[in-house]
Amino acid sequence: MTHKIAILGASGYTGAELVRLIATHPAMEIVAMSADRKAGQEMAEVFPHLRHLCLPTLCKIEEIDFWGVDLCFCALPHATSQAVIRELPSDMKVVDLSADFRLRDPEDYARWYGGAHDAVELQKEAVYGLTEFYREDIRNARLVAGTGCNAATGQYALRPLISAGVIDLDQIILDLKCAVSGAGRSLKENLLHAELSEGYHAYAVGGTHRHLGEFDQEFSVLAGRPVKVQFTPHLIPANRGILATVYVQGDAKTIHKVLRDSYAQEPFVEVLPFGQAPSTRHVRGSNFCHVGVTGDRIEGRAIVIAALDNLTKGSSGQAIQNANLMLGEEETSGLMLAPCFP
Amino acid sequence: MTHKIAILGASGYTGAELVRLIATHPAMEIVAMSADRKAGQEMAEVFPHLRHLCLPTLCKIEEIDFWGVDLCFCALPHATSQAVIRELPSDMKVVDLSADFRLRDPEDYARWYGGAHDAVELQKEAVYGLTEFYREDIRNARLVAGTGCNAATGQYALRPLISAGVIDLDQIILDLKCAVSGAGRSLKENLLHAELSEGYHAYAVGGTHRHLGEFDQEFSVLAGRPVKVQFTPHLIPANRGILATVYVQGDAKTIHKVLRDSYAQEPFVEVLPFGQAPSTRHVRGSNFCHVGVTGDRIEGRAIVIAALDNLTKGSSGQAIQNANLMLGEEETSGLMLAPCFP
Amino acid sequence: MTHKIAILGASGYTGAELVRLIATHPAMEIVAMSADRKAGQEMAEVFPHLRHLCLPTLCKIEEIDFWGVDLCFCALPHATSQAVIRELPSDMKVVDLSADFRLRDPEDYARWYGGAHDAVELQKEAVYGLTEFYREDIRNARLVAGTGCNAATGQYALRPLISAGVIDLDQIILDLKCAVSGAGRSLKENLLHAELSEGYHAYAVGGTHRHLGEFDQEFSVLAGRPVKVQFTPHLIPANRGILATVYVQGDAKTIHKVLRDSYAQEPFVEVLPFGQAPSTRHVRGSNFCHVGVTGDRIEGRAIVIAALDNLTKGSSGQAIQNANLMLGEEETSGLMLAPCFP
Amino acid sequence: MTHKIAILGASGYTGAELVRLIATHPAMEIVAMSADRKAGQEMAEVFPHLRHLCLPTLCKIEEIDFWGVDLCFCALPHATSQAVIRELPSDMKVVDLSADFRLRDPEDYARWYGGAHDAVELQKEAVYGLTEFYREDIRNARLVAGTGCNAATGQYALRPLISAGVIDLDQIILDLKCAVSGAGRSLKENLLHAELSEGYHAYAVGGTHRHLGEFDQEFSVLAGRPVKVQFTPHLIPANRGILATVYVQGDAKTIHKVLRDSYAQEPFVEVLPFGQAPSTRHVRGSNFCHVGVTGDRIEGRAIVIAALDNLTKGSSGQAIQNANLMLGEEETSGLMLAPCFP
Repeated sequence: MTHKIAILGASGYTGAELVRLIATHPAMEIVAMSADRKAGQEMAEVFPHLRHLCLPTLCKIEEIDFWGVDLCFCALPHATSQAVIRELPSDMKVVDLSADFRLRDPEDYARWYGGAHDAVELQKEAVYGLTEFYREDIRNARLVAGTGCNAATGQYALRPLISAGVIDLDQIILDLKCAVSGAGRSLKENLLHAELSEGYHAYAVGGTHRHLGEFDQEFSVLAGRPVKVQFTPHLIPANRGILATVYVQGDAKTIHKVLRDSYAQEPFVEVLPFGQAPSTRHVRGSNFCHVGVTGDRIEGRAIVIAALDNLTKGSSGQAIQNANLMLGEEETSGLMLAPCFP
Repeated sequence: MTHKIAILGASGYTGAELVRLIATHPAMEIVAMSADRKAGQEMAEVFPHLRHLCLPTLCKIEEIDFWGVDLCFCALPHATSQAVIRELPSDMKVVDLSADFRLRDPEDYARWYGGAHDAVELQKEAVYGLTEFYREDIRNARLVAGTGCNAATGQYALRPLISAGVIDLDQIILDLKCAVSGAGRSLKENLLHAELSEGYHAYAVGGTHRHLGEFDQEFSVLAGRPVKVQFTPHLIPANRGILATVYVQGDAKTIHKVLRDSYAQEPFVEVLPFGQAPSTRHVRGSNFCHVGVTGDRIEGRAIVIAALDNLTKGSSGQAIQNANLMLGEEETSGLMLAPCFP
Repeated sequence: MTHKIAILGASGYTGAELVRLIATHPAMEIVAMSADRKAGQEMAEVFPHLRHLCLPTLCKIEEIDFWGVDLCFCALPHATSQAVIRELPSDMKVVDLSADFRLRDPEDYARWYGGAHDAVELQKEAVYGLTEFYREDIRNARLVAGTGCNAATGQYALRPLISAGVIDLDQIILDLKCAVSGAGRSLKENLLHAELSEGYHAYAVGGTHRHLGEFDQEFSVLAGRPVKVQFTPHLIPANRGILATVYVQGDAKTIHKVLRDSYAQEPFVEVLPFGQAPSTRHVRGSNFCHVGVTGDRIEGRAIVIAALDNLTKGSSGQAIQNANLMLGEEETSGLMLAPCFP
Repeated sequence: MTHKIAILGASGYTGAELVRLIATHPAMEIVAMSADRKAGQEMAEVFPHLRHLCLPTLCKIEEIDFWGVDLCFCALPHATSQAVIRELPSDMKVVDLSADFRLRDPEDYARWYGGAHDAVELQKEAVYGLTEFYREDIRNARLVAGTGCNAATGQYALRPLISAGVIDLDQIILDLKCAVSGAGRSLKENLLHAELSEGYHAYAVGGTHRHLGEFDQEFSVLAGRPVKVQFTPHLIPANRGILATVYVQGDAKTIHKVLRDSYAQEPFVEVLPFGQAPSTRHVRGSNFCHVGVTGDRIEGRAIVIAALDNLTKGSSGQAIQNANLMLGEEETSGLMLAPCFP
């Protein structure tokens, strides 16, 4: 059976990544794609790498006939998603890739995103889309909120450790290195090739990055008490990839065992042998997440490193993984593409 | 039906690319993989991006039991392939990715590769693996010789034009830009990141590149008389991709029409609208080749530009396309992966 | 003696490069810098790599007191330069880095730049800034027009050959590869890191690039008859550098000798031994131009390759070289910085 | 007065960087250069970016006549330096860029470098080359030991804080990102462009990197008690640059003030305004080090980030800064080159 799929916001990188993955998905067919400013154009003009595909012409959202659409991916910018999704047919399944439905508490949303939420009812209904940890809820959800790509990476490293109570909750430092496509296809001076290549720097230093809202929400629920991590992202001259180097206090071997056991049955999360460190290059273009654990020369310290592709496992691949569940397909359907290296 | 596949030389980039593509191929199963110096290692150690796959341990060629193997990909270095293939079971299909069987004339081989051929009989039997132009021969072949990646790119731009007699055969200039993975995983100073990134240069200037042997052979057959192109490759700081900018003399619109018509039914060769120029980034990781034609302000001149991924369409993807034909599968089977951009 | 220098348009890459070079120039002092949209900011905010320097605050052009300024570099965008320069004190020396005064014929200007020139009188007065070929005129000039960076590169390869009459003037093909900083600090989608890195493509294919106006003008004067070259630029994923691969018909050894002799006394142009090919990485950040000549296997053909840094020798370094002459300084003053490799 | 300089090991990146800097140094002249495997070659062959310079032919160390040489830079590989320096004329000043004389305690050396030291007497005599903190000793030294490039970066962030007693000495985490040229011009698979570009990873995880020997030595002396930092380096796809993100516990504003005050008179260390984060791209090719401080949302935490160019301030620039002092020149002589951006 082929499910009819609509994509809202198809002219951004996560939109293009959805199309790339669906291109070889055995049970999905794209029937509508919107792109506000590029309505009327063919996808081949906007993303020439997709020119071999038969795709609907880009249109405005209001031009889409959602009748018969089984599932809609919403890859719109933050803050615009909520108003759009509120107006979609209420019996259509929706996977949102924006930040709009990640935080369950309207006050948290207001604090991190600087304004009141436009769709508070939906916010409550939305299921947090970190598949490995919300699998059953997602299967039954109508609206799934894709996670932040940095937030996903950090959680793959930390969730099992917090649940198992094997690390000091007050001494978690998350030094994260992310590639540039995470910033989207936006015209900002600091994203120009000449500005970015051959250099790197920290940004949102000091606990101001919005994905902290997700860390706080999720880790505090797991721990049953407030948990605040220290989180500093860095921008690296590469296009895809997130590497989270997480400094924790706890027994390294125990930490490794907990992660190994937690992910033993997971098709997309690979825990490396103890002492090995993952690399973003080895997950590029794929839905895999590699996790490594090493002890430190200082006793009681461990370094947990997680690597994934921000556009795939961190965003569009995750979205399809969730959609598979919502549509009753195999969770891995269309997602077993091997990483593209070199 | 699943075909049993062996890969010789699996520790190089074309070997890894074969594995990457076969990972999601519906009708191929890898049953043996050799890697001389890395025999005994798991593929996950040699190429961690493939760690999610169940693969046979790397072994030495002589340890492989070829009984039951339907097809063997030979991704060994130039000059070593011939002796190995000569000893393989004579009823097993073989796709060679080296240069050893590309030139039909032993003298040509000796001239370009600097020594006598070790398997002259096989050399005669081998079919040149440019699928779109040798499709029927490949279907019936036992041994297919994969083309040079640069040679493939230039031929996609030029073959239909030479066949149609619409360009001046004595005024063909092929300025080619290739990415670094074409040089393989070899330890050469000029392939180090610090040497290569942020700069570019021409190499093998003046008609000394070995792929000229293929151009000479193929174009002369097509034209029915000797054809010599001028060919200058350049090394570009990127990992995948070949861009051939071909300067020809002829009517640009006619040239475009000839290419459009020639490739109209081809699943992997896309001719862009007149005046558009392809980019390597839009074919990365895929088996597609994009071709563009533009006229020049100087009358009677045209520029034909072809772009492909050297590891996929230029090598391992081509090999699988040929293997599909040899095994009676759909030619496109396992090869419709969309390019990975950005 | 220290010359007082003003820079108009200091917030672009050529402006920043002027400051970088003047920082260690023994006889220049920057007394005023304009940047329209960033007026009021310190240079350290706009270009943090210059934060160690004591520099005037960025201001609007109209706020500059030009009294006492010996020379003004004008690094404004094309088309805005002419009106600004027209209003500058008529006794102040000016080196313009824009395209506004490169073409001597108002009709040529209109054809290539799409509009009438605003300062036709000045256009006639301006000296073309390719130092090695207009040295004496530049020494006595009040207004020097910096050349196009691509135009400079092609001319270093070709001027002596055209003057000496050793190549076929109707068979010149200039395949050029340029880095991204040549496009300036402008917010264009195709200049984003995620769009540009890891791929490359031709642009302005077919003889539409504006630097052709300079080639036509200069080569025709040298030859004493119209000369039209075929010119195709390509955008390469690197920040600095232009490589011009020039295909000519003539005797390669003669061509090499002509270039060697022509540049024998030049401090910044290095002709490599016959058969060697230059690389952009070996001139990065410097005012040097490397030129190489190779013969082809096809008799009577030669490949001339020139490499320079578009921001230095192709623009701001050239501007300072010219300013040195205009101010009576040593031509090489402040410009002997060795290339920055790796 | 011009000092006569010899460079041992001129065919590596730090050797080339010495030559690049000395090229415009007003008071140094290179009179001899060794390169064991490349003896007999011209520097222009080994490093074509230096072809404009008049340099002595590369030779073997034993061929050098050290008579009249004022100072010798020794840029040989670790472990080979000690035996070579032991045999040099005992009245010649030496700046060593290897790791051989960084650790004062022979046992520390043996532990981190895996063997007994060959020149224990010299080891005692050698002065640690972090100029800003050993200035007077360096001025009077005969043998100066250049610091590790990572070790230098971490120390610029931490030394004043440890001295001032404003951070918790047991909670220092140093997450470091370094570019590839730090690994030298060595033929290692993981340094190939195709392996390295577009990806990043941690290495020497868990406290095994040798520069920890320097951190331990220096910080413990400053603190008057053993200090052990946690240190994890990462390899980033760029050629030059080190970024040290240091997580400390203490008052952020105090920390900023201590650093500001400590470096107020330093010509090469720039402390950014509070809350700003430095970038490696803004120090590339220069001898500057940028330091930034930010507080965290978690009270009592601060992030100190230091950025420098590993080949310049982290190695060859530092060496020349020290040589200037040893030779009685201005400390900044030849080192005020502005960073090369973009």
